[in-house]
Amino acid sequence: MKLQKGSKLLMIGDSITDAGRTRPVGEGLFDPLGRGYVCFVNALLGAAYPERGIRVVNMGCGGHTVRDLKARWQTDVLDLKPDWVSIMIGINDVWRQYDSPLQPECHVSLREYETTLRELVALTRPRVTGLIMVTPYYIESNRRDPMRATMDKYGAVVRKIADAERTLLVDTQAAMDRALKVQYPGALAWDRVHPNQVGHMILARAFVDVLGYAWK
Amino acid sequence: MKLQKGSKLLMIGDSITDAGRTRPVGEGLFDPLGRGYVCFVNALLGAAYPERGIRVVNMGCGGHTVRDLKARWQTDVLDLKPDWVSIMIGINDVWRQYDSPLQPECHVSLREYETTLRELVALTRPRVTGLIMVTPYYIESNRRDPMRATMDKYGAVVRKIADAERTLLVDTQAAMDRALKVQYPGALAWDRVHPNQVGHMILARAFVDVLGYAWK
Amino acid sequence: MKLQKGSKLLMIGDSITDAGRTRPVGEGLFDPLGRGYVCFVNALLGAAYPERGIRVVNMGCGGHTVRDLKARWQTDVLDLKPDWVSIMIGINDVWRQYDSPLQPECHVSLREYETTLRELVALTRPRVTGLIMVTPYYIESNRRDPMRATMDKYGAVVRKIADAERTLLVDTQAAMDRALKVQYPGALAWDRVHPNQVGHMILARAFVDVLGYAWK
Amino acid sequence: MKLQKGSKLLMIGDSITDAGRTRPVGEGLFDPLGRGYVCFVNALLGAAYPERGIRVVNMGCGGHTVRDLKARWQTDVLDLKPDWVSIMIGINDVWRQYDSPLQPECHVSLREYETTLRELVALTRPRVTGLIMVTPYYIESNRRDPMRATMDKYGAVVRKIADAERTLLVDTQAAMDRALKVQYPGALAWDRVHPNQVGHMILARAFVDVLGYAWK
Amino acid sequence: MKLQKGSKLLMIGDSITDAGRTRPVGEGLFDPLGRGYVCFVNALLGAAYPERGIRVVNMGCGGHTVRDLKARWQTDVLDLKPDWVSIMIGINDVWRQYDSPLQPECHVSLREYETTLRELVALTRPRVTGLIMVTPYYIESNRRDPMRATMDKYGAVVRKIADAERTLLVDTQAAMDRALKVQYPGALAWDRVHPNQVGHMILARAFVDVLGYAWK
Amino acid sequence: MKLQKGSKLLMIGDSITDAGRTRPVGEGLFDPLGRGYVCFVNALLGAAYPERGIRVVNMGCGGHTVRDLKARWQTDVLDLKPDWVSIMIGINDVWRQYDSPLQPECHVSLREYETTLRELVALTRPRVTGLIMVTPYYIESNRRDPMRATMDKYGAVVRKIADAERTLLVDTQAAMDRALKVQYPGALAWDRVHPNQVGHMILARAFVDVLGYAWK
Amino acid sequence: MKLQKGSKLLMIGDSITDAGRTRPVGEGLFDPLGRGYVCFVNALLGAAYPERGIRVVNMGCGGHTVRDLKARWQTDVLDLKPDWVSIMIGINDVWRQYDSPLQPECHVSLREYETTLRELVALTRPRVTGLIMVTPYYIESNRRDPMRATMDKYGAVVRKIADAERTLLVDTQAAMDRALKVQYPGALAWDRVHPNQVGHMILARAFVDVLGYAWK
Amino acid sequence: MKLQKGSKLLMIGDSITDAGRTRPVGEGLFDPLGRGYVCFVNALLGAAYPERGIRVVNMGCGGHTVRDLKARWQTDVLDLKPDWVSIMIGINDVWRQYDSPLQPECHVSLREYETTLRELVALTRPRVTGLIMVTPYYIESNRRDPMRATMDKYGAVVRKIADAERTLLVDTQAAMDRALKVQYPGALAWDRVHPNQVGHMILARAFVDVLGYAWK
Repeated sequence: MKLQKGSKLLMIGDSITDAGRTRPVGEGLFDPLGRGYVCFVNALLGAAYPERGIRVVNMGCGGHTVRDLKARWQTDVLDLKPDWVSIMIGINDVWRQYDSPLQPECHVSLREYETTLRELVALTRPRVTGLIMVTPYYIESNRRDPMRATMDKYGAVVRKIADAERTLLVDTQAAMDRALKVQYPGALAWDRVHPNQVGHMILARAFVDVLGYAWK
Repeated sequence: MKLQKGSKLLMIGDSITDAGRTRPVGEGLFDPLGRGYVCFVNALLGAAYPERGIRVVNMGCGGHTVRDLKARWQTDVLDLKPDWVSIMIGINDVWRQYDSPLQPECHVSLREYETTLRELVALTRPRVTGLIMVTPYYIESNRRDPMRATMDKYGAVVRKIADAERTLLVDTQAAMDRALKVQYPGALAWDRVHPNQVGHMILARAFVDVLGYAWK
Repeated sequence: MKLQKGSKLLMIGDSITDAGRTRPVGEGLFDPLGRGYVCFVNALLGAAYPERGIRVVNMGCGGHTVRDLKARWQTDVLDLKPDWVSIMIGINDVWRQYDSPLQPECHVSLREYETTLRELVALTRPRVTGLIMVTPYYIESNRRDPMRATMDKYGAVVRKIADAERTLLVDTQAAMDRALKVQYPGALAWDRVHPNQVGHMILARAFVDVLGYAWK
Repeated sequence: MKLQKGSKLLMIGDSITDAGRTRPVGEGLFDPLGRGYVCFVNALLGAAYPERGIRVVNMGCGGHTVRDLKARWQTDVLDLKPDWVSIMIGINDVWRQYDSPLQPECHVSLREYETTLRELVALTRPRVTGLIMVTPYYIESNRRDPMRATMDKYGAVVRKIADAERTLLVDTQAAMDRALKVQYPGALAWDRVHPNQVGHMILARAFVDVLGYAWK
Repeated sequence: MKLQKGSKLLMIGDSITDAGRTRPVGEGLFDPLGRGYVCFVNALLGAAYPERGIRVVNMGCGGHTVRDLKARWQTDVLDLKPDWVSIMIGINDVWRQYDSPLQPECHVSLREYETTLRELVALTRPRVTGLIMVTPYYIESNRRDPMRATMDKYGAVVRKIADAERTLLVDTQAAMDRALKVQYPGALAWDRVHPNQVGHMILARAFVDVLGYAWK
Repeated sequence: MKLQKGSKLLMIGDSITDAGRTRPVGEGLFDPLGRGYVCFVNALLGAAYPERGIRVVNMGCGGHTVRDLKARWQTDVLDLKPDWVSIMIGINDVWRQYDSPLQPECHVSLREYETTLRELVALTRPRVTGLIMVTPYYIESNRRDPMRATMDKYGAVVRKIADAERTLLVDTQAAMDRALKVQYPGALAWDRVHPNQVGHMILARAFVDVLGYAWK
Repeated sequence: MKLQKGSKLLMIGDSITDAGRTRPVGEGLFDPLGRGYVCFVNALLGAAYPERGIRVVNMGCGGHTVRDLKARWQTDVLDLKPDWVSIMIGINDVWRQYDSPLQPECHVSLREYETTLRELVALTRPRVTGLIMVTPYYIESNRRDPMRATMDKYGAVVRKIADAERTLLVDTQAAMDRALKVQYPGALAWDRVHPNQVGHMILARAFVDVLGYAWK
Repeated sequence: MKLQKGSKLLMIGDSITDAGRTRPVGEGLFDPLGRGYVCFVNALLGAAYPERGIRVVNMGCGGHTVRDLKARWQTDVLDLKPDWVSIMIGINDVWRQYDSPLQPECHVSLREYETTLRELVALTRPRVTGLIMVTPYYIESNRRDPMRATMDKYGAVVRKIADAERTLLVDTQAAMDRALKVQYPGALAWDRVHPNQVGHMILARAFVDVLGYAWK
């Protein structure tokens, strides 16, 4: 398993990451990691590798885009001195284009998305042991659905950056697509975005598998 | 306009109809009709035809299927002695098949849907001046989406009954489909079911148009 | 219809406009426009002209007079860069003279009302595509009622300014008066000021008619 | 002063009487009489005639008509064995005709009002020392206002019964009319029905004056 | 009656005056004067002298001593430009000596009480039409009770200042003592300080009598 | 110490005993004994005699008189099968005569008090190991105060019964009187009835001393 | 994996199982399974075996002992017609002996525990496809700790029954003991009983491993 | 008894001291000392030595370590000018090492603990009449339990400082150990740290005994 003993893994993102975490920092006593994939990742790691003492910190914020991440990157990522950082962002960057078409100031274009994400990666790369790029996803099996099609483009950017920067890559869209072969989107997520517990475990499994997680 | 002076129009259905109405009966002082299409229908009628004194009663209940309507038909429809009744049901009959696939006891099959709806219409027809059948809908433009495809079948049943029973028919799916030509589903409804105010006005316009509503 | 594609219509006023809108800005997801005529105007426009993509922003504040509007005009109107602005103010300017006769510091005289309103119009006229002046009203059919008589004078000022400045004019008092021919004031508004949903639709219809709204 | 030492005065009526009293019986420690004229009557009597030990009980209920009073007369009046009873009812009997014109089942006709009130008086007269009939009122100075005109008819019934039955009579409409000579209705009551504290003191003064109250 | 037409009467004091008034200023719509003697004074004046248009402002604060009044005298009295001012203070100055004997920093000595009160009177006298000095009281009939004895000394200071400065004087202790001849303290005030509504009316009657109030 | 190993001591009474205990039975985990003398008695016993395992149950109810105790004696005392029972009742029996003089149905006369208390003692005596009679008290040092004088008569009844029935006796009035030699009543109890923590410890000390409590 | 396609697995127990589940039945939309090991078991199964459509129902109740389970076995287990049932009970049976030593009526003896558990198993065995016996545990590594020693005896009973009845067995104490080799109890559970998320995942992993769960 | 007449005893510490005290300063009317040993100490002193007028101030704060005490020592101790100060700190300094092993920044080492505590004592010694050092404790009878063993080392530091500085010393661990001879830890404290009322009385007795408290 790639995370070394005593590593601090900081996971940042939007509401999928947040999932009701504690403020200001999602770490400490009384289960402060929320109810989503971050909580599952922590529980899976803690149960299987107790001797590694992996420290998981949740810094997700509901509604955020990559533009919001940039604004708080210094205080919410770098200042906390993580060893590993995971970034899962982009759903809101795309969603606002579809649910708030009249408010262009809320939209983050593909260009801005890529530029900003590259900037954050470049800033972080030299200061950490490892980076984990996580694609955004949309729980919609029809790839010609306009929002799904757009989301795929944003996911492609994440894959491109991960490849160029040689970071780890978690392809959540691929994981969701596998589940969609046997399930209707509504059985995984009320609004095709916020998953139920099964959907969060799909994300968590994809995440820890990339880390080389062994169940036993 | 088809509603005669002093008519009482009772509108029954699920959460789309309910929309936060007052209990036990959605009528009276202080805007008890909720925030949805029923409220809009009432406001449009009241503003354009004040001299008709149309009395609108909202008896929608969130989460209900046609099976639930049947169980409360006597107390919630017949006992209130309406002159006109509108029925908009079926979304949950279909939705549970897709969001709760493991709980078949919550599913209402097409057969049960048709049988029950016919039964309610037969029971009501002789006691009222007019019946308004309203189709269920799904705010999804991809007609091959499984849930959309199923919803279309339930809508077809409504059209068939309206035709056979010579009731008025409001085709909400058709109205939504017109809007979907220029808008993404997410801009009308967070979960493709519960519309925002624009979506509710689309429903209300389709409804009053069938009644022969004249704007001026 | 006068509002061009992609226009931003900012509606400002008192509690009738506010009607429970979201703070700080009444725009965005989850129906932030309140429960009054602004919500109805937006829903009517969105349902009939989806392809125009009209953006409606509610900046009403309960209890405000024209004096209060002036104090927040820069931040709440000009800074938001609207294409169209509607102004419906004056009810509280008059009402306080009648419900709080002992507190003259809360009264806005006819002179101050006219001067301030002209000032706001002059400030705004050159920066927008269109201005919509909306009269205040009082839901009282007895024109010799002292507060009704005063309200009529404030309404006349609005008409005078609209005429001089060649803005659009919505005469809400005239719309209410038509309804009062067949209804007692108490059936439209508990306190003769805050309308129920039918009363708000009367306002909304008067509003969109001035814009050249076509029902179909 | 007409109330004998140790008398129990039960005051029944609608929301004007209720005014936030304690349930189920408006009597006891911690100021259970609400914030209206009943509280003022009790305080005026207690402060001026402490040695009489007058016991005031508030049994008002918001929204009630004479029909509602009849339904609870046994438990809420007779069972409590009062020495004196005051009845102030009728505002809702009239108001519903004007604010809910479409719901005739909420209206209490003049005939039903008179019949029921006479019935309650006949039932109570033989069991108490004294009865105090209190007219309903409407805080509207225009006597041609339709609701004011109707209210006057209901008030006339109260005067007629008081005269026939030789009970005491409190003419609250006359008291309010005196105040309306120098004040606009809105300065006494937000909705022309529920008075502010000055309005409630006008009622209380009219009430205790009929009892022969001496200020000093 | 001594208060001229259009006068503004500001009443300041402790929790007896406060009685749940609105913040920051106890004046305006919706009965903001609390539930105590200030509310009763206002209602009695408004009901008997509507044409005078007396404006009553409640600036009481629970728990305050004369030391606290001094600290807010500029903002809470002088800045509001009253025509008349009433001051009822001293109960907490004494009470803390008895309920918090171990915290001498909360006690206001007789000397500090007199000096500060004189200072406030001197500051205010030249700026107002009239001053009304109100004694503190203790609802205890045993004059040898230590707290009652102390309270009497503080009351004597108020009488002395009122006499020297030729202000009006309301002797609330004398009014309460008259009531205590027929009532046990506990029937007027749970804790011998905070009166019930009858006790507050005793205060209000003593207050308006000093103003030359005529009941009719 | 008189309480044998494994004894169950049930303490019943009014609000002084209750002090916020858990319902329906004041026993179990999470400090269910309230914040008054019962809690202190339990803590003192538990800390000094852990090996005795004394089980303390609080069955006090705020506002109760001996009449109320009788009504619940079977379910709240006998059914719980205590080994020891303490009874502290009478304060409300007296207090209502003074704070609610107009409501004689709330008063419990000295005769009824004695009869009922004897009845409860007779019923309980044969079924328990020991009975502890606790006098009511009034935190007022002036013995000629009417309520204090009455309370002393009720206390005398308790002493008489304890003597006749040879039960233990806790004289709380005597304990409070000792404290009143150096403290004003208001420093022990806001309303001369409900003590602060020092006052409750005075009660608890008097209680455990009667049991033969040894501090060390 | 042992659970067949379409199986319904009902999990019953105490607060560890409950973990905030929905009432009355822990199944349906919106993540009703609580935040504990049941939620994890469901998420792990749903993510790895979506095509099996396993239906998980949580019927845990905080504070329950085997005696409480028996009382609700018919309604809460048999009536719900599960295919598989898991039982994890015993912690409270033991805990009350240690945290409430003075209340023997709350203690469930080893004999009663065994007898009742055998009874429930016998009742259920013939009606289900499979039974999963889960041991209670105590997160305390000192096996000579009295409560740990007692818990081990109750766990032994579970193992004995599982062996005799040939049910599946989940040894949670063994799983916790493995974790305690590298962690202090306080890092897994605040009170050595209610685990944090890592502790719940340890339970869930032990549970699904017994079912033959394959991570991939 | 060592506390002189009129002394002010300030008690500082963590949640055991805090126990729900009033903010910002735990002193004054309405029982502001919380529900723990501080409340008991005050009640025991007040009941036995009323003539001494000892003033007890609670400045405990839940979760604090000696590091936190240092940060607020000036405002929360020195500025309040106590005559006596008691310090009970160290439980969280140790606990975080065991319940949050992954967050070393929350741990207070033995060295930092001793240095800081000496610093606070040195700062305070010259300004007060007396200092009372209170050891931390852990309600665990197994002295080889790792957290108990660590806590014993921190307690030894307190004893060493008390000895060196000749302050009074309260050995709470010794007091708890005596109780643990006859009770299981869970019967005194749910989490082995926060005692129930019996546990708090054990602390209070140990505390007042050191002061030379005489029960009678």
